[in-house]
Amino acid sequence: MGVIEPRVFKGTRDFLPEEMIHRDRIIDVMKSTFETYGFEPLETPALEYWDILTGKYGEEGEKLIYRLDYKGGHEVALRYDLTVPLSRVIALYPHLPKPFKRYQMQPVWRADKPQLRQGRFREFYQCDVDTVGSGSMLADAEIIIVTHAILSSLGFQTFRIRINNRKVLAGIVEYTCGDQSRSADICRCIDKLDKIGMDGVKHELERCDIPDGSAQKVLKILEISGNNETVLRDLERELSVSQMGLAGLSELKEVFAFLQNNGLPQDRYTFDLHLARGLDYYTGPIFETVLTDQPHIGSLAGGGRYDELIGLFSGIDEPATGTTIGLDRIYTAMQQLNMLENVKTKTQVLVTLFDDTTFKQSMSVAQELRDNGINTDTYFEQHSMKKQFTYAHKKGIPYVVILGPDECAKDEISVKDMESGEQKTISRNALIIYLQELTG
Amino acid sequence: MGVIEPRVFKGTRDFLPEEMIHRDRIIDVMKSTFETYGFEPLETPALEYWDILTGKYGEEGEKLIYRLDYKGGHEVALRYDLTVPLSRVIALYPHLPKPFKRYQMQPVWRADKPQLRQGRFREFYQCDVDTVGSGSMLADAEIIIVTHAILSSLGFQTFRIRINNRKVLAGIVEYTCGDQSRSADICRCIDKLDKIGMDGVKHELERCDIPDGSAQKVLKILEISGNNETVLRDLERELSVSQMGLAGLSELKEVFAFLQNNGLPQDRYTFDLHLARGLDYYTGPIFETVLTDQPHIGSLAGGGRYDELIGLFSGIDEPATGTTIGLDRIYTAMQQLNMLENVKTKTQVLVTLFDDTTFKQSMSVAQELRDNGINTDTYFEQHSMKKQFTYAHKKGIPYVVILGPDECAKDEISVKDMESGEQKTISRNALIIYLQELTG
Repeated sequence: MGVIEPRVFKGTRDFLPEEMIHRDRIIDVMKSTFETYGFEPLETPALEYWDILTGKYGEEGEKLIYRLDYKGGHEVALRYDLTVPLSRVIALYPHLPKPFKRYQMQPVWRADKPQLRQGRFREFYQCDVDTVGSGSMLADAEIIIVTHAILSSLGFQTFRIRINNRKVLAGIVEYTCGDQSRSADICRCIDKLDKIGMDGVKHELERCDIPDGSAQKVLKILEISGNNETVLRDLERELSVSQMGLAGLSELKEVFAFLQNNGLPQDRYTFDLHLARGLDYYTGPIFETVLTDQPHIGSLAGGGRYDELIGLFSGIDEPATGTTIGLDRIYTAMQQLNMLENVKTKTQVLVTLFDDTTFKQSMSVAQELRDNGINTDTYFEQHSMKKQFTYAHKKGIPYVVILGPDECAKDEISVKDMESGEQKTISRNALIIYLQELTG
Repeated sequence: MGVIEPRVFKGTRDFLPEEMIHRDRIIDVMKSTFETYGFEPLETPALEYWDILTGKYGEEGEKLIYRLDYKGGHEVALRYDLTVPLSRVIALYPHLPKPFKRYQMQPVWRADKPQLRQGRFREFYQCDVDTVGSGSMLADAEIIIVTHAILSSLGFQTFRIRINNRKVLAGIVEYTCGDQSRSADICRCIDKLDKIGMDGVKHELERCDIPDGSAQKVLKILEISGNNETVLRDLERELSVSQMGLAGLSELKEVFAFLQNNGLPQDRYTFDLHLARGLDYYTGPIFETVLTDQPHIGSLAGGGRYDELIGLFSGIDEPATGTTIGLDRIYTAMQQLNMLENVKTKTQVLVTLFDDTTFKQSMSVAQELRDNGINTDTYFEQHSMKKQFTYAHKKGIPYVVILGPDECAKDEISVKDMESGEQKTISRNALIIYLQELTG
């Protein structure tokens, strides 16, 4: 049999140990933050029935879902996100106490053209945190506070959580053209403001056949600026004709009050009228986190309230809000901002093998280190010390323990610091404490 | 649009919070043990090219692999195990320092008839630990020691690691019938001894057309019993005609010496001539861990040395050894042996909402608890205390904090122990330390 050419499916990735160590750290921070705020872990299968997965996304979405070549009477496919599985879970297990607060960190798949430089993959992790069963704006504020806590814990300094409300956008549509069927077009134009500027939006509105009078009103709304309070007040005046718009503004006021009460730094969140977010299913507050400085890599997190999605599966609407945090984006940003620790391995010590006379003692030292919580590798062959040091160096193991006949005779042991190159001989009894201090 | 019936694809499972908490704990123990022994994390994509996945399993295996309905020029499928992806990784990244010691804990998929009672699923986690690039029996012994350490840490008392060697089995075939093409048949018969007894094996050997003289010799070999040393010595005498058999016995002696040297309790491992293991690719020591007492749920872990598999991808044989630890089997065993902690939630405290006058203070207490490392949920509505207690009870949250106007006026706070029902009022300043002690 010939050799099988080793390669990975385009748009998917291997995570080698060095990268895994960083990813694990990010996941640990998320997990512990989610749990600190009372969210519980959930996992669902990668495989879901086709009708469940496609209930929400529409034809455009269906194209992006990987189907299995499975002949079992029902079509089966790979999950596309973690929100639909959550909605299915809520409908399937009515006994779960509400509000149900869960986090879920699992891969999802998109049958997309991969664009590796833009960070678009066919398989990637989503880290979702959601509260189901509460319509309180406290639940939305908590999602924002959790997002903030995670990014702060990871060491991000320059980020901002943009906040808007779908009801406010609906109010703008109502006020500017009175025709909710034009809502998607108008929102898309508004969403583009940051990219294409006021003139661009004007042009886009024309292109979408939004009547001139309506377009004028949209542009006037977009000119409203100032701090959160000013913008809210000005909008309240403009949107006074729209019950929906006023309801959205009132929700936002509540959210902002909760964030302020929590002591969230004011420069970390902002009311952003231009934020629309792509998905159709949002019904209330929406939020998206971006870096305000380099690198420009799109949003690190995004989400919002979706009070009608779960009803697709349960028949009963259940209020819900949450966000997706993008592990890959966060990793890329941390890499580019030099925020990742310079660590290549979780292993702290290599115990070398000298010769047959000291073999048993080397093994017993290694076991003692492990029993004392020190991550310890042993070399498997009696190769030259040089070769064993090279192995430690390549792997990035910081300390090497040497136990030759000389050391054994004197009940001593040598420890080499691989970074400084310094080698120190200490009493055998002092080893554990010595290494615990170095690696602690 | 009608309601979409919520259901899970047969043979796959949702892991609700209560189960996730236990699974997470098992995974944490495995992860930290793997790292203690110098193994590094690795993850690979769920999707692999078909020719890579099917290089190893033969036609029987191919039937069990889920293909994607993907039209991109190459066939793509869901990984079947974690050993083939590891082999591909080794071939693809020749710069990885050897020995390469990795662990990997990810789901795999089998297009099988699910048998939920027997614990056979279509999607399940494998936890693999392997050493690539060393032919030393120290590497095999280490895999056995790691398996032992994990099961001990989890609290298992009655388990045994059965150890055999493929070279010994080949030696038995050489000695008993001289025809290696009958190897699979003879090994299958030997493997069944525990289930069908000596008479059963005799019958099976007949059924497989093993010549009478050869069958006699097989049965004589199977009668060898005693402690590890006795069995090894008796076998050495019988298999003296087979170089292969003697090489296998010599490997086993080395492994047993390393295990003894490490202080592994003698009753936890045993030389078991009947162990054959299904997969074709093993070339040296093989091992399998079973519970010696109830429940009878098959093996918790199994693996061995496979020195020729990686060569399928790299063209160069690379010695390798490792084991798969079955998360689902371990979970099921712990459940049946009442080894799982009685915990329903990671949340330690619920802060209730009394009324508007105390709202801000309740929120600030919650934040303070979180900042001090206590997992804290807050209630989102000003419902009756009874309703808020019911929520805490249903979720299994052990402590509830109450902050009404009375408490606020006196700068006090009440804490209810949900298990005992006892409620205690303490000074507001003492809260953190009080709860840290209770939950610590």
